[in-house]
Amino acid sequence: MVVRIVKEAELKDSLGIVVTESYTFADPPEELILDCGEKLGPITVAYETYGTPNEDRSNAILILHAFSGDAHAAGWHEGDRKPGWWDDMMGPGRAFDTERYFVVCSNVLGGCKGTTGPSSLNPETGKPYGAGFPLVSIPDMVRVQARLLDKLGIEKLLAVAGGSMGGQQVLEWLVAYPERVRSAIVIATAARHSPQQIAFNEVGRQAILADPNWNEGQYYSGEQPSKGLGVARMVGHITYMSDTSMAFKFGRRAGANGKSHPFGTGFEVEDYLQHKGLTFVDRFDANSYLYITRAIDEYDATGGGNLAERFERLNARVLVLSFKSDWLYPSYQSREIVRACKKAGVDVTYCEIESTYGHDAFLLEVEAQSNLVSHFLRRAHTAGEGA
Amino acid sequence: MVVRIVKEAELKDSLGIVVTESYTFADPPEELILDCGEKLGPITVAYETYGTPNEDRSNAILILHAFSGDAHAAGWHEGDRKPGWWDDMMGPGRAFDTERYFVVCSNVLGGCKGTTGPSSLNPETGKPYGAGFPLVSIPDMVRVQARLLDKLGIEKLLAVAGGSMGGQQVLEWLVAYPERVRSAIVIATAARHSPQQIAFNEVGRQAILADPNWNEGQYYSGEQPSKGLGVARMVGHITYMSDTSMAFKFGRRAGANGKSHPFGTGFEVEDYLQHKGLTFVDRFDANSYLYITRAIDEYDATGGGNLAERFERLNARVLVLSFKSDWLYPSYQSREIVRACKKAGVDVTYCEIESTYGHDAFLLEVEAQSNLVSHFLRRAHTAGEGA
Repeated sequence: MVVRIVKEAELKDSLGIVVTESYTFADPPEELILDCGEKLGPITVAYETYGTPNEDRSNAILILHAFSGDAHAAGWHEGDRKPGWWDDMMGPGRAFDTERYFVVCSNVLGGCKGTTGPSSLNPETGKPYGAGFPLVSIPDMVRVQARLLDKLGIEKLLAVAGGSMGGQQVLEWLVAYPERVRSAIVIATAARHSPQQIAFNEVGRQAILADPNWNEGQYYSGEQPSKGLGVARMVGHITYMSDTSMAFKFGRRAGANGKSHPFGTGFEVEDYLQHKGLTFVDRFDANSYLYITRAIDEYDATGGGNLAERFERLNARVLVLSFKSDWLYPSYQSREIVRACKKAGVDVTYCEIESTYGHDAFLLEVEAQSNLVSHFLRRAHTAGEGA
Repeated sequence: MVVRIVKEAELKDSLGIVVTESYTFADPPEELILDCGEKLGPITVAYETYGTPNEDRSNAILILHAFSGDAHAAGWHEGDRKPGWWDDMMGPGRAFDTERYFVVCSNVLGGCKGTTGPSSLNPETGKPYGAGFPLVSIPDMVRVQARLLDKLGIEKLLAVAGGSMGGQQVLEWLVAYPERVRSAIVIATAARHSPQQIAFNEVGRQAILADPNWNEGQYYSGEQPSKGLGVARMVGHITYMSDTSMAFKFGRRAGANGKSHPFGTGFEVEDYLQHKGLTFVDRFDANSYLYITRAIDEYDATGGGNLAERFERLNARVLVLSFKSDWLYPSYQSREIVRACKKAGVDVTYCEIESTYGHDAFLLEVEAQSNLVSHFLRRAHTAGEGA
C-alpha cells in the first residue's frame, strides 16, 4: 500500500506538500536484463503519487518526465520555493484532476533523482558506477515503470502521458505494453531522433567529455565536470526556446557586466544561459546527462521498421500535441506519429498548439494543453466506466 | 603596384594558382584607433587579388569572408587539395568574372590567417597578444579594408559583397563609406544579431573558456585549447546546416564505432561533427574565435537606431539574398534590410533562394547565386560606364 503524505493545500487548488517515495525491486527478479544485454540490480525507483486510487484502480495515470525532470511533477516539497515541474497541470480541478485520477510519476532509470543511475553505488565495488554503469535504453526505463505499477497494483493505466523524452516513453508504452494502456498523451516528441536532434545532444556530451574533471566518469569524490555540464546545458536551453521567445525575453539588452571584453558577458541572454548552466550543475549529474541523452538518441519507436505495424496490437485512444514554434521537436515529427496511428486504425486526435515558447511550450502552455488533456481524459475515463 | 601571381589555370575556367599577399600599414597613421578606444599597430592585412584592374580602377570588387574564412577566396594554393572558399563563384566567366572585374579579398582584423589578431606578436612584449589583444569590431575590420583599398589605389568599389559575417561588413561599408560603394551584395546576414544568434556564439565561447588549456589566452607555447574549440565548432556546424540537409546527409546511419557505449559515437552525424571539430583546431585560433564572434554579436548596423536613416547618404544599388532553410540567419532578417533600403530610397533587389542547405547555402547554392550576382554586377558595371 502506498503511503501518500499530502498535507493541507498551501495554495488553493494545489496538491500542497508532497514527498518523493522510493521502491527497491523486492520480488524476483530483482535484477533487470537491459537491452544492452547486461544485468542491473538492485534497482530503486523514485516516484510520487497524487490523488487516490479508486477501488479497481482503473483511474491511474502515469506521467513521464522529460530529460532533466524527476518524479516531483506536482505539489510542493517542504521548504521548496517552486512546485513540481508540471504542477500547473495537476491538482484538484486541473487537467490531471487529482479528485478524479490517481497520478503516478517516477524518475527514469539512469537518472540522478533517486532512481538507480551512474551516480548510484555499484554493489560490487561499493563505489558509484560512473562510466561502469551499463547502457540503458528508453525501453529499459519503461520496464522499470511497469515494475513500479505492478508493485502499486495497477494493472491497466487510464492514461500514460509525457512530453519530449516523456513522449518517447509514452510511445514505448504503446508498443511494449499495449494491453496495459487505455489512452495515451504524446506531447512534443518524435518516434526517433533526427540527426539534428542527435547532433545537439552530441555537443552536450562532448562538452562534458572535454572537461578534465569528468575523469572517465569517476568524479564523485572530487571536482565535478561542472564547466562541461554547464556548456551542455547552455546549448540545451537554446534549443528549448524559440527565436521569438528569446527576442521577447532578452532582446539585445546588455548583461550585468557590460560589453567591455570578449571574455565577459556582453548581453543579458549570455548571463541567463551561464546562470542556467551553473545552477544545472547543482541538480544534475554529468554521467546521467551522457547516459540519458544516449538513450534518447538511440530510441526508435519504429523498431527500425514501420511505426504503424508496431501499433497494430493497440486498442488505446491517442492524443498527439505539438507546438508551432518548437523547432527542436518540429510538428512534422508529431504528424508522423499521427499518420502511423491512423494507418493502424488507432483512434487518434492531433493538435498543433499555437505558441511562441518553442519546445518549452509543453511546460508553459498550460491553458491550451489543459483544455485538450482534461476533455481527452474524461472521454477515456467515461469510456472505461461504460465498458 | 600589386603583384599578381596567377599561373596557368590548372582547371578550365579556374584562376589556377594564386598566392596570399600581405600589406603592413606603412603610410601614417600606422596605427588604428579602434572602436574600443585603444590604439593598435602595426597592422598587417593578408589579401588576395584576382583579375586585372582597368585603367581607372573602376572595376574593383571587394569580397568579404565569413567567420572562419580567409583571404583565399578563389583559385588554388600550391599543393592544396581544395580551392578557395568561394572558388565556384569566381574566375573567368563565373559570377565574379575575373575577365571583367578586379577582385580583392582580405582576411579580417582579429583573424588568424595573416591579418593582425590575438595570435600576432605584440611588439611591446615580443609575445603573442593572447587575451591582451584589444576588442575589435566589425567597423574596425572595415577600416582596415578601406586602408588596404587606399594602398591598392582603389577609390571607389564597383561592388562589395559577402555572406554571413561578410554580409555584416557589407552593411558597414554602406553606412561608413557610402561614397566609396557603387553596389553591394548582402547575403544571408542580419543588421544585428538576435539573442538566439548571440546565444549560439556564446556556447562556443564558453566551451573555449572552459578548456583549461585556454590558460587565460596564453596557450601559444603550450597545448592548444583544442577540445573547447572543437566543441565550439561542432555547435557552429549544426547551425550552418538545416534539419533537412542533415537528414539527407546522415539520416540515422551508425557511426564508425558502432552504437555500443554512451561515450563512443553512435551515429555518423556524431563522427562528422567530431571530425569537423578536430580538424578546425588545425586551421583556426581559439582566441580569434572569441574576438571575432564577439565582434559579430556586438555589431549593430542600425547604430542602435534606424537602419533606413543610416542608408540616407547611400547612392548604391543593393542586392539582398537569403535562403529558405537558413534558420541561423532567417529570411526575416534580410527583409528588414530590404525594408530599410526601400524606406531610404535605395535601389534594392531581394531574392529568397530555395535551398535545403541551411546557412551553408551561401557557399553551396552556386547556380542560383551566380545568375543573380552576374546580372546584378553587369548592370552596376554598365551604369558606371554610362555615368
